Amino acid sequence: MVNQQFATAVHILTALAFNKKKLLNSETLAASVSTNPVVIRRLLSLLTKSQLVTTLRGKSGGVRLSREPQTITLKDVYLAINPAESISPRTKNPTKECPVSCSMHSIMTTISDGTQKSILKYLESQKLSDLIKKIPKPSA
Amino acid sequence: MVNQQFATAVHILTALAFNKKKLLNSETLAASVSTNPVVIRRLLSLLTKSQLVTTLRGKSGGVRLSREPQTITLKDVYLAINPAESISPRTKNPTKECPVSCSMHSIMTTISDGTQKSILKYLESQKLSDLIKKIPKPSA
Repeated sequence: MVNQQFATAVHILTALAFNKKKLLNSETLAASVSTNPVVIRRLLSLLTKSQLVTTLRGKSGGVRLSREPQTITLKDVYLAINPAESISPRTKNPTKECPVSCSMHSIMTTISDGTQKSILKYLESQKLSDLIKKIPKPSA
Repeated sequence: MVNQQFATAVHILTALAFNKKKLLNSETLAASVSTNPVVIRRLLSLLTKSQLVTTLRGKSGGVRLSREPQTITLKDVYLAINPAESISPRTKNPTKECPVSCSMHSIMTTISDGTQKSILKYLESQKLSDLIKKIPKPSA
C-alpha cells in the first residue's frame, strides 16, 4: 500500500516547501531524492493533477507548490499518489458450502476500510509545514 | 504491509472462532480459504508461537483457539504475522549537501511510526468475537 512512491512524493513536496517559492527542476529534485529524474517527473505529473504543484515551462522553468505548506496534508499526498488498498480482500471465489468462506470478503472489506480510514485520519493531521520544521536551516 | 497473509490468518482464526471448540485440521481450513494446506500450516505455526491457537497432534487432532474470541483482537493477529512496515524509509544514502535529503529518513520514520500506530489502534478495537457475528449461522 503506502510505499516508496509515497515516500518520494513526500520528499519532493518537502523539498519544494523548504525552498519556498524557488522553482526547482526534476534534475535537482532527483539529486535530492537520489533517484532518476524520470521517477520524479512521473510523480510530478500526479501531484500536478491533484493541484499540489505547478509547473512553469521554459528554460528557467521548474516546479513549485501550488498552495502554502500549512494547507497541504499528507492525506493530500496519499490521495494524489492513490496507492492500492492496504488489505486487499480475497478475490477468489468462496467455498460455497462454508459460511465462513462466504462471509470473508465482506469481513475483510470492512477491516480494509477501517484501516484505510485510520491511516487517512493520521495523515490528515500531518502538514507539510510541520515536516519542514524538522529540517535544519543552512547557515548563512 | 498488511497483506494476503494477514487476510488468511484472519480467515483461519474466524473459522476456528465460528466452530467454537471443534478441532479443525489444515486441510479443512485450506478448503475454506481456497488455498494450499502448506500456506495454512506456515501461518498456524506463527499463530501457535503467538499463543493464539493450540495444536493437538494425532489422528483426531487439529487446531483450536487458545483463548476466547472476545479476548483476541486483530492487533494480536497483525503482530503474530509481523508484516513489514507500511512505509519503509529510504535506505539509500542521503545527498550530503542537501539538508532536505539528510532529514528525510528521520521524517519518514516518524510518518511510518504514526501510520503503524493508527493501524494498530484500529485493529485493537476489532475483536474476533465481533467478526463471527457477521457470519450467518447454518440452519439446523
